[in-house]
Amino acid sequence: MRIMPASEFSITREVEYGSEEQNQSVKQIIAKVRAEGDKALRDYALEFDKIKVEALRLTEEEIQAAYAEVDPAFLDAIRQAAANIRAFHEKQKRQTWLDLQPNGSMLGQILRPLKRVGIYVPGGKAAYPSSVLMNAIPAQVAGVPEIVMVTPPATNGEAGVNAYILVAAAEVGIREIYRVGGAQAVAALAYGTESIAPVDKIVGPGNIYVALAKRNVFGVVDIDSIAGPSEIVVLADDSADPAYVAADLLSQAEHDEMASAVLVTPSLQLAHAVQAEVQRQLAELPRQAIAAQSIRDYGAILTVSSLDEGIDIVNQLAPEHLELMVSEPFQYLGRIENAGAIFLGPYSSEPVGDYWAGPNHILPTNGTARFSSPLNVDDFMKKSSVIYYSKEALMANGRQIMTLAKHEGLEGHARAIEVRLQKEGNNHE
Amino acid sequence: MRIMPASEFSITREVEYGSEEQNQSVKQIIAKVRAEGDKALRDYALEFDKIKVEALRLTEEEIQAAYAEVDPAFLDAIRQAAANIRAFHEKQKRQTWLDLQPNGSMLGQILRPLKRVGIYVPGGKAAYPSSVLMNAIPAQVAGVPEIVMVTPPATNGEAGVNAYILVAAAEVGIREIYRVGGAQAVAALAYGTESIAPVDKIVGPGNIYVALAKRNVFGVVDIDSIAGPSEIVVLADDSADPAYVAADLLSQAEHDEMASAVLVTPSLQLAHAVQAEVQRQLAELPRQAIAAQSIRDYGAILTVSSLDEGIDIVNQLAPEHLELMVSEPFQYLGRIENAGAIFLGPYSSEPVGDYWAGPNHILPTNGTARFSSPLNVDDFMKKSSVIYYSKEALMANGRQIMTLAKHEGLEGHARAIEVRLQKEGNNHE
Repeated sequence: MRIMPASEFSITREVEYGSEEQNQSVKQIIAKVRAEGDKALRDYALEFDKIKVEALRLTEEEIQAAYAEVDPAFLDAIRQAAANIRAFHEKQKRQTWLDLQPNGSMLGQILRPLKRVGIYVPGGKAAYPSSVLMNAIPAQVAGVPEIVMVTPPATNGEAGVNAYILVAAAEVGIREIYRVGGAQAVAALAYGTESIAPVDKIVGPGNIYVALAKRNVFGVVDIDSIAGPSEIVVLADDSADPAYVAADLLSQAEHDEMASAVLVTPSLQLAHAVQAEVQRQLAELPRQAIAAQSIRDYGAILTVSSLDEGIDIVNQLAPEHLELMVSEPFQYLGRIENAGAIFLGPYSSEPVGDYWAGPNHILPTNGTARFSSPLNVDDFMKKSSVIYYSKEALMANGRQIMTLAKHEGLEGHARAIEVRLQKEGNNHE
Repeated sequence: MRIMPASEFSITREVEYGSEEQNQSVKQIIAKVRAEGDKALRDYALEFDKIKVEALRLTEEEIQAAYAEVDPAFLDAIRQAAANIRAFHEKQKRQTWLDLQPNGSMLGQILRPLKRVGIYVPGGKAAYPSSVLMNAIPAQVAGVPEIVMVTPPATNGEAGVNAYILVAAAEVGIREIYRVGGAQAVAALAYGTESIAPVDKIVGPGNIYVALAKRNVFGVVDIDSIAGPSEIVVLADDSADPAYVAADLLSQAEHDEMASAVLVTPSLQLAHAVQAEVQRQLAELPRQAIAAQSIRDYGAILTVSSLDEGIDIVNQLAPEHLELMVSEPFQYLGRIENAGAIFLGPYSSEPVGDYWAGPNHILPTNGTARFSSPLNVDDFMKKSSVIYYSKEALMANGRQIMTLAKHEGLEGHARAIEVRLQKEGNNHE
């Protein structure tokens, strides 16, 4: 792992938007699903997944059968994780409000859950039960009455769907699950088919075809942000344990070759100790090849003159995950401007947040923490403004409203006020 | 204005995404601005706006001079409107929170304003001072320290920029204003030039080139949603005054030819009375040609069997603006699922919300109220999660976290926990 002055470091990871050819094929898939519905979904399962799908929707028996296939320790852990995630997200929930004014007018903001949300869950090795919880629970806490899951058909498990995914879904109460993946699943969620009713929003990660399909249906439905490669920045001083720092960097690096793991430290001693630890731990890691490439291409140990300079670097990088492994981490919290999730102290290792503590693990990547947020309850709610003006209020303010409308050349707007003032405003102006 | 049963009505307004040719020319503009900075901005001003721009930034004197050009009644009205808008948006603002747990752990959510926001304001006839307020004030209330405005160079006014726009900007405290428009302005805000520092988010409406440029820079910066054509639905019963209903429908129709104005009513008597009133008022409207085409192409009077059926229609249409001109409007409020802004009773004419009352006039269009919200303070803030786990908490939960990580095949995640349990967890398991 390279050690270098922070001033010499820059990270460039071009986000994959897909080729024009891929985009065209996604457009064709969407068109076919719109035209042919379920038939298109079955055709694509055969063509892309090499699987003949009969019933698109899983039965309650198939979902329940998955429980027999999972480790009881997993079941116990996922239940506690779900409770923690639910408790955290409950604290995000907001209420409708109305402001009652002395003249009888009322202004307010109504908050409502979306009505129907679709969660895309990748199949194969990228099938993460924890991501089912992280996508579904905020939607549930928001009050979304219908949450539906789609996941590619597969040959593993009794139901042709990963049993751990099914159990995670069942544990959070998702009972509407379809064996359909890829761009065709996104199209089905956006436009509906005979079997699948259309949704208002599609969330969850997927490959480039899924991402392109989501971009294409955006506007017809809402979508979440397209996740980029994952990253961690650890800001540490002499008080940090090099073995902890190295393990946390590697836990990020093992995700994929494009992941980035960066240590920022004013301690040259720590820098060298972490460098050695990374080598030592890397040699024993099952996903060694992936982690080694990530560390080589996008990893670095950046030396800074002080923690103050380190904070500046962190704010420039705007990392998805930030660990503050310094002796008094809370004294720096107020100065962190840009980070998706901030982990403080030696015991708040990133996996605590990935799986357990409660905050969402779906976080802004690739520097977008400058302006984006972790997935949260607000993402599954919408607002409506409420305006009730009393007669008294309109009569008192109507002329000024007309002045503003006329200066924008919108005489029709002015007249909508004027017709009321003329009929009922005889005591005013 | 056509009268028809609601069941026969459907509205299709394809949203304009621009041609591939337009998109390519936008990409070229963005590339040139990135490569050449201010020079590109001046070149494009000459090419597209036919104006030779010297200083890109307006001076404080130029901004102040605009006050001499505006009607004092306008100034008075815009000040009160700004105060109303500010008061409403202040109520939306949320606070950072921390949840302190018995074992010493803390979980929380930090809310911070974005650091720098750019507002695009169109020039010419679509230059609306009210939109300056509606974009800027939520950002200010959020606490955004740097708000910058861009607007195309023009020949009107002393400063080459619409004086009403300048005064609106100055009134809300915007002092950083540039004479630059089109896709090149969006590129400058996203990437920065010698004169213009890059922003974190770009908001505000524009033509198709501006919209395409915003789509192209999304990810580098955040953007607001692309506004579609505007619409109003009025749900009214026998108690409604036909002259008020007609005036409100026309105030929407005068916006542009693609705007939609729809009345939904169980009263055939009201339907006919409004039809006649629309004809009568339309004949006297300055923007008659626009409004007439809007009414013809996208306007309708829909008859329903009951207000209940009317509510269903409203929820299907998910209008940007909804007026409830029924005798007891509040009894229906709880059943409105989809609407950007809801206006209740005879005195809450849409222009009250467009200019005055306080709620934002930038609203979800074209059915997107199903999942989108009025522009609000949250749009200018971002969240960071905070995770502080105590030693006690990690030791008590570490094994379960490891179980979840191992079942996802992420051994490196499990080891980041294990290294801590091994070193410090001797009293646990």
